Amino acid sequence: MATKFASEMNVKFLLYDVFDVCSLLEKPYYSHHNKKMFDMVLKAALKLSKDKLFPLLEDMDREEPELVAGEVKVHPSVPALMEEYGNGGWIGASFSESVGGEQLPLMITSCIKYFFTSANYSASVYPELTAGAAHLITAFGNEDLIKTYVPKMIDGKWQGTMALTEPDAGSSLADIATMAFDNEDGTYRIQGQKVFISAGDHNGVENVIHLMLGRIEGAPEGVKGISLFVVPKKRIQADGTLINNDITVSQVFHKLGYKGAPITELVVGEQGETIGYLIGEPHKGLFYMFQMMNESRLGVGMGATGIASAAYYASLEYAKERLQGRKSGQKKIDQSQVPIIEHADVKRMLLFQRSIVEGSLALLIQCAKYADFATLTEGEEKEKNDLLLDILTPIAKSYPSEMSVLSTSQAVQCLGGYGYCKDFPVEQYYRDTRIHPIHEGTTGIQGMDLLGRKVIMKEGKAFQLYLEVVKETILSAGEAPTLQGQAKQLANALQQLEEVTAFKIIQRAERGVEVFLADATLYLEYFGLITIGWQWLKQAVVALKMIPEAKKNQRDFLAGKQVTFNYFFAYELPKIQGLAIRLMDNEAVTVEAGLSDFSD
Amino acid sequence: MATKFASEMNVKFLLYDVFDVCSLLEKPYYSHHNKKMFDMVLKAALKLSKDKLFPLLEDMDREEPELVAGEVKVHPSVPALMEEYGNGGWIGASFSESVGGEQLPLMITSCIKYFFTSANYSASVYPELTAGAAHLITAFGNEDLIKTYVPKMIDGKWQGTMALTEPDAGSSLADIATMAFDNEDGTYRIQGQKVFISAGDHNGVENVIHLMLGRIEGAPEGVKGISLFVVPKKRIQADGTLINNDITVSQVFHKLGYKGAPITELVVGEQGETIGYLIGEPHKGLFYMFQMMNESRLGVGMGATGIASAAYYASLEYAKERLQGRKSGQKKIDQSQVPIIEHADVKRMLLFQRSIVEGSLALLIQCAKYADFATLTEGEEKEKNDLLLDILTPIAKSYPSEMSVLSTSQAVQCLGGYGYCKDFPVEQYYRDTRIHPIHEGTTGIQGMDLLGRKVIMKEGKAFQLYLEVVKETILSAGEAPTLQGQAKQLANALQQLEEVTAFKIIQRAERGVEVFLADATLYLEYFGLITIGWQWLKQAVVALKMIPEAKKNQRDFLAGKQVTFNYFFAYELPKIQGLAIRLMDNEAVTVEAGLSDFSD
Repeated sequence: MATKFASEMNVKFLLYDVFDVCSLLEKPYYSHHNKKMFDMVLKAALKLSKDKLFPLLEDMDREEPELVAGEVKVHPSVPALMEEYGNGGWIGASFSESVGGEQLPLMITSCIKYFFTSANYSASVYPELTAGAAHLITAFGNEDLIKTYVPKMIDGKWQGTMALTEPDAGSSLADIATMAFDNEDGTYRIQGQKVFISAGDHNGVENVIHLMLGRIEGAPEGVKGISLFVVPKKRIQADGTLINNDITVSQVFHKLGYKGAPITELVVGEQGETIGYLIGEPHKGLFYMFQMMNESRLGVGMGATGIASAAYYASLEYAKERLQGRKSGQKKIDQSQVPIIEHADVKRMLLFQRSIVEGSLALLIQCAKYADFATLTEGEEKEKNDLLLDILTPIAKSYPSEMSVLSTSQAVQCLGGYGYCKDFPVEQYYRDTRIHPIHEGTTGIQGMDLLGRKVIMKEGKAFQLYLEVVKETILSAGEAPTLQGQAKQLANALQQLEEVTAFKIIQRAERGVEVFLADATLYLEYFGLITIGWQWLKQAVVALKMIPEAKKNQRDFLAGKQVTFNYFFAYELPKIQGLAIRLMDNEAVTVEAGLSDFSD
Repeated sequence: MATKFASEMNVKFLLYDVFDVCSLLEKPYYSHHNKKMFDMVLKAALKLSKDKLFPLLEDMDREEPELVAGEVKVHPSVPALMEEYGNGGWIGASFSESVGGEQLPLMITSCIKYFFTSANYSASVYPELTAGAAHLITAFGNEDLIKTYVPKMIDGKWQGTMALTEPDAGSSLADIATMAFDNEDGTYRIQGQKVFISAGDHNGVENVIHLMLGRIEGAPEGVKGISLFVVPKKRIQADGTLINNDITVSQVFHKLGYKGAPITELVVGEQGETIGYLIGEPHKGLFYMFQMMNESRLGVGMGATGIASAAYYASLEYAKERLQGRKSGQKKIDQSQVPIIEHADVKRMLLFQRSIVEGSLALLIQCAKYADFATLTEGEEKEKNDLLLDILTPIAKSYPSEMSVLSTSQAVQCLGGYGYCKDFPVEQYYRDTRIHPIHEGTTGIQGMDLLGRKVIMKEGKAFQLYLEVVKETILSAGEAPTLQGQAKQLANALQQLEEVTAFKIIQRAERGVEVFLADATLYLEYFGLITIGWQWLKQAVVALKMIPEAKKNQRDFLAGKQVTFNYFFAYELPKIQGLAIRLMDNEAVTVEAGLSDFSD
């Protein structure tokens, strides 16, 4: 049975050596921290992951949440986990000390998330959602809301949710139909239906706090009429006791994977007795929500990376132990069988996985760094950090999500028939991770966000900044002779990206927005490959510098980095060529296909 | 709920219009058949699929086989299904009338298989395995074996299995350790362990007949010492009664999908009382087995195609009904939402699926045609058919298998959150089809078979024949002006395939077999894309000719063919460019990676 799910050495390499998290310590907001403290936090997170989360992985998959007497019954370990998350400060890790948080930078909390999601994705979702919801209240709610809800949430006593989706409003949030009626006492009566609400109800906590999108009676249509409310499962009476707030769980979904966390359908205000509390100003709900969207989309990317990481280590362990066959060209039967890791094709499947896991993790820490510095800087520097975060977010959400599906599939393949069986964990990883290209905006939505919004916003300023930072990495690699080939390869790819993008912009003018966006998903994939190439080159530059002075086990790790970097540039990055052909093709095959073309 | 899982119109288009199955009627062996009879058989197969198999799809997934008191308990519908398969002549469909079969060509039985697997893959496996095992007995067993076993198997009373794999001999069949001791009375005592045996035991039949590989005491080591035995679960006593043959089911596996059929682990001859009957000559077992391997590998390709087909139609149906969002550039909220099939990205996901399903089905019927003609021709013509079947088999097994994983994943994606839930069938298709890149030789094994054996055998004769038949299709397209672009594109691809292959052959001489085969899986993928491109061009040529005289609904179908053909050449075929870059690269990244490169 697999024992390893994440690499502490890799996390430290990325945090300290590649992304220099300690540069944050110079900022007053983080000046009370130090490297030793970061180390301790990481160690504690890994310990919790190993001791409490990972052992529950299979159990939480096998004992699915159920709807019992109107309440969602989850795995019996959840209450203790929530307490642990609360007491350990894990839910409030990124919150400022002023609201009871640990005031840790996102670069660190991202890595905590990596440990948690790789150990047990379902279990990681409860605190993650709670932190996200509490974040929204802290950022845009009034003092009263903050005081009432945030401490209980950070303590793990109350669960938080993001209640956006409705039966007729999934990808199309403009169509949200949940209504809010002004009670003229500072509260609203809420009525509607929500679907696919993660942790939307469960018996592991005392209360569930929904951050719910709805439409105030008389509000403008579309996205400009959506408001954000705090809607608790149980509202607090004057005497401090809790009373049901008329939210009914009409369904708990049975899913392909990710079974340890309940996904629910909620009927809100069926008896007309649901009270909600407005966050910020009316009609600005979607704006507030999108302020947090980067965070939750990066969270999805990390979930996908974590699961791919666990699957990678499980298949690596298997490949080292499983004896099967002989090496090509050495087929004599009197030789004993070799561990399958000696077969080139198995090494290829392992390097594929590692290149995705470590490439994705690097990109996610890169994004966290931009996010951290965006809150610590001002003016042009802040704008630069914000814009880079904006343009990278759809990639950091989608590349790990899409590739985790393929990566866990290769983990299954490494185990052959055993990979298809429940005796090994890889089939669960394969099921669990399939949610990621769907939730928090499907891959299709991310593609349109990247090409239709991020690349062209502010006259392409984010895109230009992106080109600059990648070029900086290429320049830094140019000094090392062994990296010149790949540096040149990335420079060519970057130039091609500019050409493809220019082609698309012209296409938009000439052919209209539908043709322009028809292959946005492919553009996203294309952009993603180049971006991960950038992150690999960045790592290779650092690894190369470190090797001469590294100790034995770190030297092996760094040499493995070089090999994985070589793998990515030899096997993955060339895939942009096929995509570029399609992206520079003006035939609007899909746009022009009509309904009758799908008949027979 | 989805209602359609396969297209009868497409099957008829391929059989009659593209591959001219009626040309077989000129051969004496099939001269008693006619087109009307083929039609009737197809209709009956589709009816059985609709009425009996498809309704059990979900049920058989939810009620997994279990080991109860030493016997595998399967879904209660299995006995009636086996009777139906037997009485309807479905198991014996491809057998000659001399042994009680229907003497139908493989082109027809392939399409029957397509209907069965698309309706319910698990349910289709029972008769398929039985037919495969009975085929082996018929082809290489003596009269006595044929008389004793084949009629009962064709009647569906006895289940057949292929018992190859052992705990230490999966991909490496050379390491088979099951022993056979000569009883010197024409029988053998068998002892060993078999694992991952599909339908290796179940209570839906009276008896289970294993076609088992083993090693006669004193046999040469390796593949040249393996013999093939008939080993029944219950052997037949002189008085005709059945007695247990000392085979114990030690485990029934719990799997990711494909749950309606049991996969078992068997302990054979623990009490020393298992009797087996040698098929053909000693030590030729693997040779016999491989005579049937083409058939079972094409069967896997068809299973993958069938599941992808069902997932395609399920997601198509959903996309036509589900309203969500507005078209790009028409974002006004006062317009009502459109069915998601109007979004270009959804059409792309649907065309992707259709291009895989119909491309794969075409290739599989193409292979069946070569197989049919190989048995009906002699001399050079027979050799041509045999060689083309040989070189295409690893592709016809792997392209559908690998792509069905991606195709069913896109079906899930079309349904968004609902696709991840058990309320819709697509998540099951996604789980079910993941077995295909694994069983009957993993994709890695197929890659080595293609590049390491098929391409170079007989001094490249099969490869040359392949180039010729593809060029014939290109020539036939050249006459139609609208197809010239794609015909040229395929001609270029074919030329590049020759260059890549020549590069590989030189690499083999210069760098040795390990480097030569290191990227065999990529070569297989590359070869597969070109081959499916060929099959699409072939279909497009025929469709184009038919359109002027087609009736309305067939005209729509044919127009859809053209669109899907355009999709494949615009989106899929360009993927060869990235692969070619890697295949023509001499850096042996994976071969040179050592064990220490996977440490940290």
